[in-house]
Amino acid sequence: MPELDVARAVANARADNPRLAAICTPRYDEALREAPRPGPLCGVPYTLKDVWDVEGLPTTRGHAPWAERVPASSGAVHRAFEAAGAVLIGKTNLGDLGITPESQSYVGGVTRNPLDPSRTAGGSSGGAAAAVAAGMSAFDWGSDYGGSIRLPAAWCGLVGLRLSRSTWPSPPEGWLPPLPHIAWLSAMGPITRDLETCRRVLDAVPSLRVAEPPQPRFAGVLVVAPDAFSAGEWPGFAREIRAALDRAGLPSWPAPLPRPAQMDRVFVALIASHAKELLRGRGPRLGPVLSALTIGRLLGDRRMHPQAARVTLELAALRLLRHRDRAGAMRDALSLRARFEALWAAGFVLVSPTSGYPAPPHGRALGLRGMASFAKMGNVSDATALTVPFGHFPGGLPRGLQWLGPPGSERRLIELASRVVRAPVA
Amino acid sequence: MPELDVARAVANARADNPRLAAICTPRYDEALREAPRPGPLCGVPYTLKDVWDVEGLPTTRGHAPWAERVPASSGAVHRAFEAAGAVLIGKTNLGDLGITPESQSYVGGVTRNPLDPSRTAGGSSGGAAAAVAAGMSAFDWGSDYGGSIRLPAAWCGLVGLRLSRSTWPSPPEGWLPPLPHIAWLSAMGPITRDLETCRRVLDAVPSLRVAEPPQPRFAGVLVVAPDAFSAGEWPGFAREIRAALDRAGLPSWPAPLPRPAQMDRVFVALIASHAKELLRGRGPRLGPVLSALTIGRLLGDRRMHPQAARVTLELAALRLLRHRDRAGAMRDALSLRARFEALWAAGFVLVSPTSGYPAPPHGRALGLRGMASFAKMGNVSDATALTVPFGHFPGGLPRGLQWLGPPGSERRLIELASRVVRAPVA
Repeated sequence: MPELDVARAVANARADNPRLAAICTPRYDEALREAPRPGPLCGVPYTLKDVWDVEGLPTTRGHAPWAERVPASSGAVHRAFEAAGAVLIGKTNLGDLGITPESQSYVGGVTRNPLDPSRTAGGSSGGAAAAVAAGMSAFDWGSDYGGSIRLPAAWCGLVGLRLSRSTWPSPPEGWLPPLPHIAWLSAMGPITRDLETCRRVLDAVPSLRVAEPPQPRFAGVLVVAPDAFSAGEWPGFAREIRAALDRAGLPSWPAPLPRPAQMDRVFVALIASHAKELLRGRGPRLGPVLSALTIGRLLGDRRMHPQAARVTLELAALRLLRHRDRAGAMRDALSLRARFEALWAAGFVLVSPTSGYPAPPHGRALGLRGMASFAKMGNVSDATALTVPFGHFPGGLPRGLQWLGPPGSERRLIELASRVVRAPVA
Repeated sequence: MPELDVARAVANARADNPRLAAICTPRYDEALREAPRPGPLCGVPYTLKDVWDVEGLPTTRGHAPWAERVPASSGAVHRAFEAAGAVLIGKTNLGDLGITPESQSYVGGVTRNPLDPSRTAGGSSGGAAAAVAAGMSAFDWGSDYGGSIRLPAAWCGLVGLRLSRSTWPSPPEGWLPPLPHIAWLSAMGPITRDLETCRRVLDAVPSLRVAEPPQPRFAGVLVVAPDAFSAGEWPGFAREIRAALDRAGLPSWPAPLPRPAQMDRVFVALIASHAKELLRGRGPRLGPVLSALTIGRLLGDRRMHPQAARVTLELAALRLLRHRDRAGAMRDALSLRARFEALWAAGFVLVSPTSGYPAPPHGRALGLRGMASFAKMGNVSDATALTVPFGHFPGGLPRGLQWLGPPGSERRLIELASRVVRAPVA
C-alpha cells in the first residue's frame, strides 16, 4: 500500500479539491486532530461516498433538498471503518440522487477527472474515484446500481470492486426506503489505487460481509466480446485480452452469453418497468424535473440537477411508452441472471471491458451508446465485479478491464486480475 | 419411415451381404416365416449387433473362440424389440471383441462400407451400420464404448445415437463380466437411416429406459472446434456449423472446453490405466495376442484377430509405460466429466464433427490421429450423443455432425438436429 497518511491526504485535498470538487463535505481539521485508533487500517485516510451515514455530517446523496439531512448516528459502513482505525477525510460528491454516470450536483458541484479535468470522473461514485486518484484518500466505499463504482474507477485509472449483494448486503442508510423487487441490482464496495489495497480494505471490515459461499473449482475465463453497440473505442478487446490470458497461462473462451446490446436491453427494461417503485420516495417529482430541464437553472431552482432530471424523464418515458410489462421484464432479467449463475456454477469467471469508452468530456456520458453495457452485466447477475486498469485508450486515458465472478469470489478475482497484465509496449 | 419390409430387407441381404459381410448370423428364412406380432414396430425388419443375446443364436462379440456360445434365452434388448413387433433379420458383425474401429473378425469376416466397398464401415458396430445403409434392416441396436455406434453410423451416412448409460443402462448380456469402475463409458442405442426412425425406435422400447431426467432450459449450442490433432479432413468445421446454426436461429458459441487432443488423452489414460480390469475375463490372452500379430494368420490361429490384438497390445504397453496412475487418470476423467455436466446444467448442448475423417480404407482406421477424439467426449461424459449426416467430404463420402447433450436429452437433440441442415450447395 502506498504510504498515504492523513497529513498528506489533507494537504492534497486542500490543494486540489477546489479545482476537482471530489469532496463535497470536508473533514480536514477533524481528521488531523483525531487520535490514532488501533486496527488493521490504523491511520489510513479514507473518504466516503455521500450515501453513507456519518454522525454529524449530512447525507445528501447529491440532492440539494437533502443538504441539511444529518443522521443522528453513523451507519454500519462508517462504523466498520472507524473500528478498523481508518480516518475519514470527508464525504465525496456524486450525481444528484446517484442516478447519473457523471458526478454533477447542486451539493458538490462538478467533479473533475484528476487525469484530465476537462473530463468527468464518472458517476455516481465520481467524487470517490477523483479523491482516490488525486491522493486525497487511500480508499473510498461506493455503491453500484449500474456501474457506479466501476465506471468512475476505470475512468480514473483505479481499482473498483462491486461486491455481490448476496455476500455484502448494503446496509439501509441515508433514509432511503428499501428497494422493492430489484434490490439485488445495488451493491457496494471499495475504490482503491491498487489490488493490494483493495484486498486489505476488505479484510479490515469483516462485519460488513454476511456470507462466504464456497467457490467452485476454477474452470477458466470466458471473454465477453464487444458488439457494435458496446465496442466504443476498444473494438480489439477480445483479441487483446485473450493474448494476455494466454501469457498468464489462463484458459479462455468466448463467453456463451447474449450480445451486450441484448443484455443491456434486459437491464433497461427491468429498470424502466420498475420506474415507479424506483423513484417513489427517492426525490424526483414532476415539477422539479420539468423545471430543471427548462428554465430552472435560470431561476435558481436547485431542487434537481438537469442531468438527474434528464435520466428521470427518460426513465418515465421508457416506462410509459415501451416497458410496461413489469412481469415480463423481471422474467427476462431473472433468466439472464440464471445464465450467469450457471456459468459461475461451472467454475468460470468472465472478463469484458469495464466500458468501451474513456472518461468522456463533461456532459457527454449520457449520450454514449452502450457506455455501461458491460457494467450492467454485473448488476443484473449480482456478480462480484472488479475493474482493474488495463492499458490506455489512444488518447492516453486509462482503460478498465472488468472481471465478473460469483458471489464471494472477490479473492479469486483479485488473484486472477493480479496475474493478467497488459503486454509491455514493444 | 421408409417402408422397408421384411421381404425387401431379406432380398437386399441375400443380394448384398455376401459382398458386404454386414450380417454374420442370418435369420432370413425364420424372419420371412414369422407371423405378424402387433406393436409399434409391427413388421419392421431389424438387425442386432452381435453383442446382444438372442435365444438360439450365438453371441460371439466377433470373437472366434466364442463362436459356439449360444445363450439359453434372449436378453432384454431383443425381448424389447420382439415385444414391439419388430422382426429380426440377423445379427451383425463387429470387430473382434468390439475393441477396434473397424469390423473385421474371424466370425463375420471383413465388413465393407456400402457407399464404397474399398473402405471400412467402421467399428465396432460396423456390421450394424452396413446392414442399415444397405437396406437389410430398418435399424440396428449398437453399443458404444468410444464411438462404436457413432463412427460407423457417420461413415455410412446414417443417424447413430449413443444413449446415456444413466438413463438407458446396457443390460448385462453376452457373458461379459460387469465392467469395474469405468462402466459409464459404455452405453447403447440405435443406428437408423433418419431421425424420424430413430425417434420411433426409442418410443417403441420404453422398457429399456430407466430414467427421464428433467431437462434444463435450453441456453444454446457450444461448438467444439477441431484442433490440429483432431481436424482430419474437416478443418473448416467451426465456421460451417456456426453458419448453419445461425440459419436455424440457434445461438452458438465456442465451447469452453479443453482442446480435443487434451480430452483424448484423458480418455486414453483412463482406459489404459484400467487395461487389466478391462481385459480380464474378456478374451485376450498374451499367447493369442502375440500369435495374431506374428505368424498366427499363416498357421490358421483364429483365436484373435490381428486388429484386436494390436489394440490389446497397445493398451497393455500404454498401461505399463505411461498410464500406471489409475487414481490420477480417474480423477482427471471425472473432472472432465464434471466440466461437461456443468455445461449441461447451464442448458447448453455441444456440437462437433463425429470424426474429422471419412470412412478410411480397410486397415487404416487405427492409424488415424485423433480419428475418435470427438466421439470419446461423449463417452467420458456419459452424454446423450447423436450423429447425423451433414454434407460430404471432398471425395464424396458422408460427414457426420455430432450433438452432445445431458442424460435424457435424446428428444431435444433429435429436434435440434432436425432443424440444422447443411446449406444447399450454391
